[in-house]
Amino acid sequence: MSEQLARPTAVDLEEERRARVVLNRAFEAGTAALHAAVEVAGATVVREQLAAQRSTAAQRDVSDRMSAVDPDRELDRAHRLGLRFVVPGDDEWLGQLSDLDLAPALKRVGGAPLGLWVRGPLRLDELAGSVALVGSRSATSYGVHTASRMAGELADADRVVVSGGAFGIDDAAHRGALAAGGRTVCVLACGADRVYPEAHRELIEHVAAHGAVVSEVPPGSAPMRMRFLSRNRVIAALAAGTVVVEAALRSGALNTAGWAAALHRPLMAVPGPVTSAASAGIHQLLRAGGGSLVTSAADVLEEIAGAGEHLQEAPRGPEKARDRLTHTQAVVLEAAPAANPVPAASIARTARVVPRVAEETLAQLRSYGLVEETPDGWRTTPAGRR
Amino acid sequence: MSEQLARPTAVDLEEERRARVVLNRAFEAGTAALHAAVEVAGATVVREQLAAQRSTAAQRDVSDRMSAVDPDRELDRAHRLGLRFVVPGDDEWLGQLSDLDLAPALKRVGGAPLGLWVRGPLRLDELAGSVALVGSRSATSYGVHTASRMAGELADADRVVVSGGAFGIDDAAHRGALAAGGRTVCVLACGADRVYPEAHRELIEHVAAHGAVVSEVPPGSAPMRMRFLSRNRVIAALAAGTVVVEAALRSGALNTAGWAAALHRPLMAVPGPVTSAASAGIHQLLRAGGGSLVTSAADVLEEIAGAGEHLQEAPRGPEKARDRLTHTQAVVLEAAPAANPVPAASIARTARVVPRVAEETLAQLRSYGLVEETPDGWRTTPAGRR
Repeated sequence: MSEQLARPTAVDLEEERRARVVLNRAFEAGTAALHAAVEVAGATVVREQLAAQRSTAAQRDVSDRMSAVDPDRELDRAHRLGLRFVVPGDDEWLGQLSDLDLAPALKRVGGAPLGLWVRGPLRLDELAGSVALVGSRSATSYGVHTASRMAGELADADRVVVSGGAFGIDDAAHRGALAAGGRTVCVLACGADRVYPEAHRELIEHVAAHGAVVSEVPPGSAPMRMRFLSRNRVIAALAAGTVVVEAALRSGALNTAGWAAALHRPLMAVPGPVTSAASAGIHQLLRAGGGSLVTSAADVLEEIAGAGEHLQEAPRGPEKARDRLTHTQAVVLEAAPAANPVPAASIARTARVVPRVAEETLAQLRSYGLVEETPDGWRTTPAGRR
Repeated sequence: MSEQLARPTAVDLEEERRARVVLNRAFEAGTAALHAAVEVAGATVVREQLAAQRSTAAQRDVSDRMSAVDPDRELDRAHRLGLRFVVPGDDEWLGQLSDLDLAPALKRVGGAPLGLWVRGPLRLDELAGSVALVGSRSATSYGVHTASRMAGELADADRVVVSGGAFGIDDAAHRGALAAGGRTVCVLACGADRVYPEAHRELIEHVAAHGAVVSEVPPGSAPMRMRFLSRNRVIAALAAGTVVVEAALRSGALNTAGWAAALHRPLMAVPGPVTSAASAGIHQLLRAGGGSLVTSAADVLEEIAGAGEHLQEAPRGPEKARDRLTHTQAVVLEAAPAANPVPAASIARTARVVPRVAEETLAQLRSYGLVEETPDGWRTTPAGRR
């Protein structure tokens, strides 16, 4: 976090959003190097730099791909499809997505998404405290029953259930949450305007109507193989913890599990009969010490509550404001002292942002009640220290 | 180990055996205080002291109970029943039973047994590297299948399977080992001449004919409630590691598991469906970090091999001699140097035994090929250092 340079604030949020749309169209999701550059310099700067670099064929290809994108038109079209493009700085942005910038790349995929395309009434910032529930596509009746029951219990505890919309465990997780009257989010490897698998059209449309369908890839994108890998990291990063129910050896669900571990989020696994190949990957994971054994939603809530650093209570009151801080806001808040006030310039140095950004960000944080300005400068409020 | 005083050697082994028979009749098995006294002073001395103390009614009661026992007659009668009373110092004694003297008491039960009554051709020292397989009496078909399969695989790997002869998992463990042509030991809470439960008469007699039926309580003893608690510690102490297959919350099998943990031996548990009450105690144990999840005999062998300190390879060659060392022999061997030889008196000081015991024990260890005598004194052989 301390290496970051100044990042755009609300003032140029729409310019930043447009730049992110362009980069989102021009690069495959999860391109770790791009995300790292955006994390450091902001998308507006990266967009400008990449557009100007035309020395090599590869650079010209990128530049051409970028100039082919009209971001305003993209956003308009998405809007007509019922989609919004949520980026850092939006109220709705979920701060914990930025943890991906600190996690190592897995299979050359990594970094926080440039933004997420969202379809549905559920806001991303309502996912603080959510639980990802994933597992085998070829689930057994035991796995389906267990995932569905656990999702229902999590919904009863007012937790949003995040999954991938696939056959088997994902399906059971979404349906279990919906059956309990709960909220669920479906993270797709294709565009959020599309459905995959086609057999789940009704389910996914239902989730879009009552929860949210989310994707990192632009509208219209096909569910290509490598997009499932980048999609898995979004599932793990959106949720406070990930539960795997049934996974054969080398199951794709174990890739999502790997992201939960890389993010230092609680990784949990539901055991099954040792005679079941559908649980073999689960038992291998637990034997390797890679996750905690859970048997019920109560166990899951205990694991998530025990996670300390990544603890995200179900949002309420002043906590809610903190949950949706942008990266820059979080860094500036962290740099603000609790006791003796200091000038904004001093906070800017500590946070490694330019003074203007620090001032604007402190003003935003004040509007959330997290910092206060005194004659001697700025300091955190009790809410800002919580 | 270092606190121990001189303990009887082969010279007075039969006197010691008689004293242990008397104490075994006069005290309930697992009386931790008695076992501690015997561990320090030897049974011969403890017997004499207790017989002489008649100041209080309680003391007179103990003394009277002891004088009512004719140890030679007891041993004769046991012999006619096909039983032998194996005590420390016997070739057949399993050194790792003495670990119980170092473990804390559980539910006021503890200490190494004074001796074990054994019926059957299998020698106790062949239990180095054995695996205890225990679990619920009201097992499900999943548990029975899994225990039976695992016992068979362990038998295929030439491991003796130790269990308690009860309904359910114990039964499946014994039968699984026998079906694979393997060896199994049944540790009873009643006398080794009796059977419990009666429905398992045929099974237990079969085990006695081909393996061994073992009990800490004297022949003829009834299977009283508290004897199951002391019996459980013998199961855990005889085996190199303990596996629990199915245990409801508060199952008796978890008491055996507690002993494996108290002995710092590998404690392993086989998960099951989280929907099964018969596996709830297993999952609780695993969640508490009390044991390792295992799914197969291969996992079990890996856990036992990884145990380091308590590693007991399946006995073969020179290892075999070490496996059946008495406590005193092990202490003296440990005190013997690897490089420069030292006099027996020096080894006696290090081992905290009297010089005569050190000399006799060194002579025994030499006959096993574990130490050698040089003009300058004694040192270990390569076999003794292994």
